[in-house]
Amino acid sequence: MADNRIVVLTTGGTIDKVYFDDMSRFEVGETVVGKILREGGVTFDFEVVPLMRKDSLQLTDADRAAIRAAVQVREESRVIVTHGTDTMVDTARALADVPGKTIVMTGALSPARFQASDAVFNIGMAVAAVQACPPGVWIAMSGQVFPWDHVRKNRGRNRFERTDD
Amino acid sequence: MADNRIVVLTTGGTIDKVYFDDMSRFEVGETVVGKILREGGVTFDFEVVPLMRKDSLQLTDADRAAIRAAVQVREESRVIVTHGTDTMVDTARALADVPGKTIVMTGALSPARFQASDAVFNIGMAVAAVQACPPGVWIAMSGQVFPWDHVRKNRGRNRFERTDD
Amino acid sequence: MADNRIVVLTTGGTIDKVYFDDMSRFEVGETVVGKILREGGVTFDFEVVPLMRKDSLQLTDADRAAIRAAVQVREESRVIVTHGTDTMVDTARALADVPGKTIVMTGALSPARFQASDAVFNIGMAVAAVQACPPGVWIAMSGQVFPWDHVRKNRGRNRFERTDD
Amino acid sequence: MADNRIVVLTTGGTIDKVYFDDMSRFEVGETVVGKILREGGVTFDFEVVPLMRKDSLQLTDADRAAIRAAVQVREESRVIVTHGTDTMVDTARALADVPGKTIVMTGALSPARFQASDAVFNIGMAVAAVQACPPGVWIAMSGQVFPWDHVRKNRGRNRFERTDD
Repeated sequence: MADNRIVVLTTGGTIDKVYFDDMSRFEVGETVVGKILREGGVTFDFEVVPLMRKDSLQLTDADRAAIRAAVQVREESRVIVTHGTDTMVDTARALADVPGKTIVMTGALSPARFQASDAVFNIGMAVAAVQACPPGVWIAMSGQVFPWDHVRKNRGRNRFERTDD
Repeated sequence: MADNRIVVLTTGGTIDKVYFDDMSRFEVGETVVGKILREGGVTFDFEVVPLMRKDSLQLTDADRAAIRAAVQVREESRVIVTHGTDTMVDTARALADVPGKTIVMTGALSPARFQASDAVFNIGMAVAAVQACPPGVWIAMSGQVFPWDHVRKNRGRNRFERTDD
Repeated sequence: MADNRIVVLTTGGTIDKVYFDDMSRFEVGETVVGKILREGGVTFDFEVVPLMRKDSLQLTDADRAAIRAAVQVREESRVIVTHGTDTMVDTARALADVPGKTIVMTGALSPARFQASDAVFNIGMAVAAVQACPPGVWIAMSGQVFPWDHVRKNRGRNRFERTDD
Repeated sequence: MADNRIVVLTTGGTIDKVYFDDMSRFEVGETVVGKILREGGVTFDFEVVPLMRKDSLQLTDADRAAIRAAVQVREESRVIVTHGTDTMVDTARALADVPGKTIVMTGALSPARFQASDAVFNIGMAVAAVQACPPGVWIAMSGQVFPWDHVRKNRGRNRFERTDD
């Protein structure tokens, strides 16, 4: 039954960044989410769908429509979306009225390929939240699971914070 | 207010194992949970209480009474207990009737000091679950958040599984 | 030509230790040396020969004879032997009169599978030493390349030290 | 006596790169060489001198003169210089006629802060080479210790190779 499965749509962002020495710069690489889930020893059935590889500042309205369509087309009711942090809330807004699904967005402030990174921790949070939270869109970052419409990224402090309005 | 804080009681187990070359064996070492929370970039207020350093097979009834007392004495309503995996469910039972607290137990099948370990992932799950779950005792292992009375460790397969009774 | 190649004979020891949760103990696992050489980006031709998987305290005279025979039978003149630290010097003695080969022994005081380990560093030292040192038996540990007959393991301080006799 | 000590001059390059999420780019950060030496369990006396933090493509003639002066002013005869890979050979040339010192240059093709990096391996090679090699300038990269005037970086293949001229 599809309801036991979790699908992870990956869209890019810092979590999947790799370093290319010959260009002396970072780019979004192959996603590490599958490896993180396997090392986490998860026993549920899952599928990782590598949808796009973009910095979230580069995401267009068309990209957000594509992410939304990809969420809707899946029969699973539990969906994790990995995403760059800068516009994660914008994409959450685009997903807000998808009915009947628990959608948890997460990502990382430091690439998963670094020795010190919040990536594994955040994916762990997302996995628990996507099973425990009711339908709606949630953002799992900075040690908290926020309702999408009560959170923002504070770039200066490099963290996600609750907004009270 | 105490309800914004999370307390983590550590009792030992594989998650905190270290290796001593001069004795050619490993033992439970200083807990790594604080480091995991900091690398996870958590923004909530937390305290790590290093209660004991035991293999869970060595835990006695007196130890479980001490863990229970330590949980009850805290004013926080959200408590994470790290614990060895072999008798995690037994300690959960000892905590089952503590009223008014969400207690999430977790640990690891591979030491956190290993390059490949489920420790960070599991702590991430526990952090999300302790905020999202209602009062009661939960076990966050193997990619799932189980009610304590519907889970067992399958030693042969080295994983936690749901029980249906 | 064989002289461009490096062979690595693995015999066990702390460097290759893995943790088995179901037995709550460490044992020598599959060797990590090939992975370390690939991550080190080496461009020379090499072969890893997994000879045995023993704690060095368990090595017998017959084992040492087998290690010696395995070194002699190889046509490469540059040989790295990974080995447990407690009796590394004893095996070095058994290899001391193998003619015409540069043999570098190394290992680790902390398992390679740990996040903090001397394993990668020591293999890097061994690779440089096996190319730079004249024929004979050398021990690359604790940041130094020692002639085999001027070194001992100081168990109390958990390090290798030069002996002056 | 100064001859038992090793000095490490750090100049920047990929080995010390860090990632800044708020700028979506990485820069040369605080050097990791001291941490690598400590985790390697070295027992010799050493000093890390953080000379500059530059991509090697940005190094000027004045920078190279400063590196050369810093090498000459040290009383140690064994010097390791960490450096970006793109112009490592150019700086080696500037150091070639420093008399009476064994100078080993190294760096990394992947940042040391990555989980998969050649940094620790290369520092291990450099430590062995600086003790085993005669005076002169050497480059320890790609699993080999090259004389500085017989090596080049092959950018397309992202490796250092021997040149025969």
